[in-house]
Amino acid sequence: MNKISEHNIIELMKKKSKATPSNIVKGIGDDCAVIDVGEGLLQLISTDSLVQGIHFSTLFSSPGEIAQKSIAVNISDITAMGGIPKYILLSISIPKTIDLKWMSEFSEAFCSAANKSGVNVIGGDTTGSTDSIFINITVVGYSDNKTIKYRDAAKDGDHIFVTGNLGDSLAGLKSLQMNLNYSVLKKIHQNPRAHAEEGVWLARQPNVHAMMDVSDGLYQDIQKICLASNVGYHIELEDLPVSKDLMKFCREQNFKPHELALAGGEDYCLLFTASSNSRKIIEESFQDEFGSPVFRVGEIVAKDSLGILKNNKPFVLSNIGFDHFEDQT
Amino acid sequence: MNKISEHNIIELMKKKSKATPSNIVKGIGDDCAVIDVGEGLLQLISTDSLVQGIHFSTLFSSPGEIAQKSIAVNISDITAMGGIPKYILLSISIPKTIDLKWMSEFSEAFCSAANKSGVNVIGGDTTGSTDSIFINITVVGYSDNKTIKYRDAAKDGDHIFVTGNLGDSLAGLKSLQMNLNYSVLKKIHQNPRAHAEEGVWLARQPNVHAMMDVSDGLYQDIQKICLASNVGYHIELEDLPVSKDLMKFCREQNFKPHELALAGGEDYCLLFTASSNSRKIIEESFQDEFGSPVFRVGEIVAKDSLGILKNNKPFVLSNIGFDHFEDQT
Repeated sequence: MNKISEHNIIELMKKKSKATPSNIVKGIGDDCAVIDVGEGLLQLISTDSLVQGIHFSTLFSSPGEIAQKSIAVNISDITAMGGIPKYILLSISIPKTIDLKWMSEFSEAFCSAANKSGVNVIGGDTTGSTDSIFINITVVGYSDNKTIKYRDAAKDGDHIFVTGNLGDSLAGLKSLQMNLNYSVLKKIHQNPRAHAEEGVWLARQPNVHAMMDVSDGLYQDIQKICLASNVGYHIELEDLPVSKDLMKFCREQNFKPHELALAGGEDYCLLFTASSNSRKIIEESFQDEFGSPVFRVGEIVAKDSLGILKNNKPFVLSNIGFDHFEDQT
Repeated sequence: MNKISEHNIIELMKKKSKATPSNIVKGIGDDCAVIDVGEGLLQLISTDSLVQGIHFSTLFSSPGEIAQKSIAVNISDITAMGGIPKYILLSISIPKTIDLKWMSEFSEAFCSAANKSGVNVIGGDTTGSTDSIFINITVVGYSDNKTIKYRDAAKDGDHIFVTGNLGDSLAGLKSLQMNLNYSVLKKIHQNPRAHAEEGVWLARQPNVHAMMDVSDGLYQDIQKICLASNVGYHIELEDLPVSKDLMKFCREQNFKPHELALAGGEDYCLLFTASSNSRKIIEESFQDEFGSPVFRVGEIVAKDSLGILKNNKPFVLSNIGFDHFEDQT
């Protein structure tokens, strides 16, 4: 049996899809598809699935938490390019074991989270399923063509930054699975926050080059930026931002913080690169704007150099990788 | 346990969704959401799921057939309002039992069917699932604001028409499930055709009022038009268009043709209403344009009169209904 990776399938579709007409600015491969709608305005469209048993569990999360998470992770795709989300469409497939109370709580929380995020629920589809709940969300947003950020804009010499701690969500998921009592980490996994304001602000900084959200873990996501930008990277292990809660979890449960920080999916903070002379201005102005730091975790280098460093020396990782085709629960 | 119907959930979402801003022409409840993008142009967005074990089975259909069906039923949502489909996004969640060969065949057929229909695959998401294959498709299309047709435009006295035979797809599904040898019916179920050209043409006829595609069966879908338009209907059993293959299937397998024709989901022909004085012109000009007939199946009447007639007398149905929350396999 062949193992299918998300990357394989996307490459397959890219090859087989016809040449894109000129009003499609970005097709398959970035956080969103981007359509030029004229007068400098771009429409961003993204679609994402959350599958019971893979991305969430009804044992660990309430219907309201699942609804909020669905909104957050999808809005994150738009704001990670600097766009403003406007419309949302929900498809949900539910097995017979789900009752109207669950669905009612889900719907209420979904609409409430959408309203809070300034997006309108404009359509959807509800069907049955045989076993699992399947949620698919399509978000439509807008950006102007001057400030939008893509994955393919990283340049040799750029600093690599993230806007938040890494690994907390994965540790939270493990806590839920192992029935452990790390409530802060569990909450981060169940109620992720899209770094929406940060994305819109960063998109407006001319020193910022490539940007995306950390959904599959830093280790996989930085490689997406490098592949799209035709560059390499060095990530410095000692510089990965990890929370006190993650350190405590790792100490007590015998995990390595840097492994969770690198492999940890669903962080939903932003990963971006900025020009080599802009470190100070980015760090200071971000801190001024949001009252919280950005974290420099490495630098963009020439194409053939990919790797993790520890104290500036090459470091070989083991046991890293978070692929959606591995069960997470 | 409460039984959840699709209609319930949509009503729930409608109520809880905020008042729509003025550039949303239609939100939840029609085939597509409709956004006014200025200069008389409307953008149509639709999202739809196909779930293994509910909408398709890998036992009955090849990956290519599933891909083609996914495209056809989704494009149908756009063309049923008279729109032209332009872009498509695919989400697919697949369990570990699906190998790369299946996925490769699916992708190839998906892109080929999209190209044939003139739509570009611009994005998507691939994830794992625990048991079933989930496919969700979002289609984006365009229409002008003069010719677009909605569900809510039926008027008292209108004729009700459909553009093709009813019930074949459901009989095809039953043939597949019962391992019977009705190859024409099975093929209709596995390879439905969106009545795309017909939709675009009908939308341009000023006598045509309400329009939608027949996806849940005539019996359910005519009620959606009536509910949205605040009118009633009479459907004449003797006028339902049924194929010779369906008649043969019913005779041999002891089904009633009118029940399959009314309840049969996934017909994907068009259901529309047209002004009372336009029957002849619609019938003749449709025949001229497409070399095939439209079928008058009833008329729109005052609000409180809903029903099926047989030889112009009220007829009580039993055992009718096709709800996605009932397993179809």
